[in-house]
Amino acid sequence: MRFEIVTIGAELLDGTLVDSNTSEVASRLRKIGGDVIRGTTVPDDSDAIRSALVRALESADAVVALGGLGATSDDRTKQVASRVFESNLVLDEEVLAHVRSRFESLGRAMPEINVSQAMIPQGARAIHNQSGTAPGLVLEDDARLLFLLPGVPAEMRAMMDGYVIPFLEGRGLKREGEERILRTTGISESALAELIDPTVRRLARTEVSYLPNLMGVDVRLICGGHGASDASRTADRSADRVEELLGRYVYARGKEGLEEVVGYLLSMERQTISVAESCTGGLVGHRLTSVPGSSDYMRGGVIAYSNDLKKRLLKVRAAALREHGAVSREVAVAMAAGCAERCGSDMAVSVTGIAGPGGGSEDKPIGLVWMAVASRAGERARSFLFGGAREAVRVQAAQSALDLVRRVLLGIEEDD
Amino acid sequence: MRFEIVTIGAELLDGTLVDSNTSEVASRLRKIGGDVIRGTTVPDDSDAIRSALVRALESADAVVALGGLGATSDDRTKQVASRVFESNLVLDEEVLAHVRSRFESLGRAMPEINVSQAMIPQGARAIHNQSGTAPGLVLEDDARLLFLLPGVPAEMRAMMDGYVIPFLEGRGLKREGEERILRTTGISESALAELIDPTVRRLARTEVSYLPNLMGVDVRLICGGHGASDASRTADRSADRVEELLGRYVYARGKEGLEEVVGYLLSMERQTISVAESCTGGLVGHRLTSVPGSSDYMRGGVIAYSNDLKKRLLKVRAAALREHGAVSREVAVAMAAGCAERCGSDMAVSVTGIAGPGGGSEDKPIGLVWMAVASRAGERARSFLFGGAREAVRVQAAQSALDLVRRVLLGIEEDD
Repeated sequence: MRFEIVTIGAELLDGTLVDSNTSEVASRLRKIGGDVIRGTTVPDDSDAIRSALVRALESADAVVALGGLGATSDDRTKQVASRVFESNLVLDEEVLAHVRSRFESLGRAMPEINVSQAMIPQGARAIHNQSGTAPGLVLEDDARLLFLLPGVPAEMRAMMDGYVIPFLEGRGLKREGEERILRTTGISESALAELIDPTVRRLARTEVSYLPNLMGVDVRLICGGHGASDASRTADRSADRVEELLGRYVYARGKEGLEEVVGYLLSMERQTISVAESCTGGLVGHRLTSVPGSSDYMRGGVIAYSNDLKKRLLKVRAAALREHGAVSREVAVAMAAGCAERCGSDMAVSVTGIAGPGGGSEDKPIGLVWMAVASRAGERARSFLFGGAREAVRVQAAQSALDLVRRVLLGIEEDD
Repeated sequence: MRFEIVTIGAELLDGTLVDSNTSEVASRLRKIGGDVIRGTTVPDDSDAIRSALVRALESADAVVALGGLGATSDDRTKQVASRVFESNLVLDEEVLAHVRSRFESLGRAMPEINVSQAMIPQGARAIHNQSGTAPGLVLEDDARLLFLLPGVPAEMRAMMDGYVIPFLEGRGLKREGEERILRTTGISESALAELIDPTVRRLARTEVSYLPNLMGVDVRLICGGHGASDASRTADRSADRVEELLGRYVYARGKEGLEEVVGYLLSMERQTISVAESCTGGLVGHRLTSVPGSSDYMRGGVIAYSNDLKKRLLKVRAAALREHGAVSREVAVAMAAGCAERCGSDMAVSVTGIAGPGGGSEDKPIGLVWMAVASRAGERARSFLFGGAREAVRVQAAQSALDLVRRVLLGIEEDD
């Protein structure tokens, strides 16, 4: 089934807002085997909306249009769609009751302007809006199928997952391939490909793609089969095989972040952790504490941005700073050991580096980062030379520090 | 001048990647008075690309197309564009030398496949690529103007700013309105509107719009005039007037983040700072240290996620935690005071709150956050009740903590 996605709003074409709805809707449609053939974005202008909808309905089997369902005069999508389907707007009492009750629950009377939100094209079905007032709409005739959804991402998601996807599955659309994601870090896309391409090419009904970003490379496998359960078995087998080849570099299957994986391992091992951050300035701590329930294993830590604080709070010796410099194996190890002791945690991870744009030298260029983990088993340190600007260096450093913790917890030997 | 933006890539229509290029290109075009009438996204399919380019060139005065300029067989944009302009690809020696030198600088020989990147449509102009191999292209005939740019955001930005915008300005395109941004935090969009709408309506040639997000609301003024310098004067006058009305809520004019403003104020006052973070887990520190040169005023701090660390590293008394709870004015003040002392900084800011999803109670619901600033002048504390999920609460808390620092540094009285 071929889809077009139409997004509507002046703010999408004047640089105010990035359109994330197209990607989110496309991802949901792909999962049930839908094929998005085009995306179109137009401003809140009746002619532009009309021409985009008409063309999309001609080219695709179904259209998902987003935005322009509010009560203000800017929002014209519904009126235009109604005319495209040669219908008239009529009052829907059920929708009106819902809009009214939303205002009442906020302790306010419904402004008259909001009555317009309860007007829907005759013959259309309204999609209930759990978290807002404007309903979604389904318009359909013999040849055309149009879903109108609000542009607010939370409302769009609720309607896609709660209504549109089940509706399309009811029409026989279903997942044709099973997807598996293997999340890796610490290895480049080309090195990954060298490791697994020869094997993947021999795996039956399995397609692989690489999705690189600053945090690592996600490997995506799409697997076919005779029916869903066969495809699912194929996918598990292929993912197992690829994971075997990638070994230490895989930190998760699925969507989990490295901070969740580390949190899970710490919980399993009943270990507590603390962080000693210099160049990352708190980012490792922020990521570890982003996981609900992280207070079970995360004690906290020290942002030792100045050398003074490295000495004062982490007991790094002045001689170590003088002899080796703040960005060195010795100082990274001392920071981690001092942090574990100071915070009373079973283990600690430290990061110290040169994020730029200043501070680089020939010996210690911008992007050089030392990190260490101290635990009851001893200390382990690594250095990296990251590319990119200041924030890119910091993001990569935090990810690598979390990965070092993962490797220590799993007893994975270091790369050579 | 009316533009269409065409983005090309299967990854934009299968949920893999959000298209941020359209918004970035649109923002740059708007600044010189360009009007983007439509955005179209198509996969890497010759027919789809051809049809999108032909239609865009018919509807708009100029087209910016992004993506599909690489050397792999997936990348078809250039071939299609060449046919659309009834031209043939020819080898450009200058581009070939550039591609070859890029590989040489990485210590590698150029693979044969990359020769294709030096093939450009006869009559087209190549746009030099500073940070990659594929050149951008300008194709033009009597009625049509097409810019082909790489989809990699950094390469796109360099070519837009270094070539496309100056090229269009050379064609007479220029800013028709002057823009001013006033960045606010600590006040809602509707409260802002109430404060300034009556005045703005009376301001000559000034349009206002509100851009809300978790960090606050940006107020955008677009001002006209007779010529650029007149518009610029109008814009300054209008911005001054609006800033007067908004007073304490405005933290910046332009694009600066609150961490930059706070850094600037700290530098001016020759004050040093440290942070004591509980629920934000390091986010305030991460933001303060994101500013290059922040080591001049940022000492570091303590991530006191556990009560134990609040006592151990920040000298918060056990009795205060027991009597008032970790999320209280008393503990926030003690954390800030203890942090300034421990870190030897002139001032310190603390944050302690309930980010959820667990930990809320009737007395202290999820979203309640206390924060305090301790300085030589004494302590100041505030509480907030933030809405949203865990990360939204943390982001708002960090922003409000930085704003509290700003207010203390500027001697701004608290809201009642």
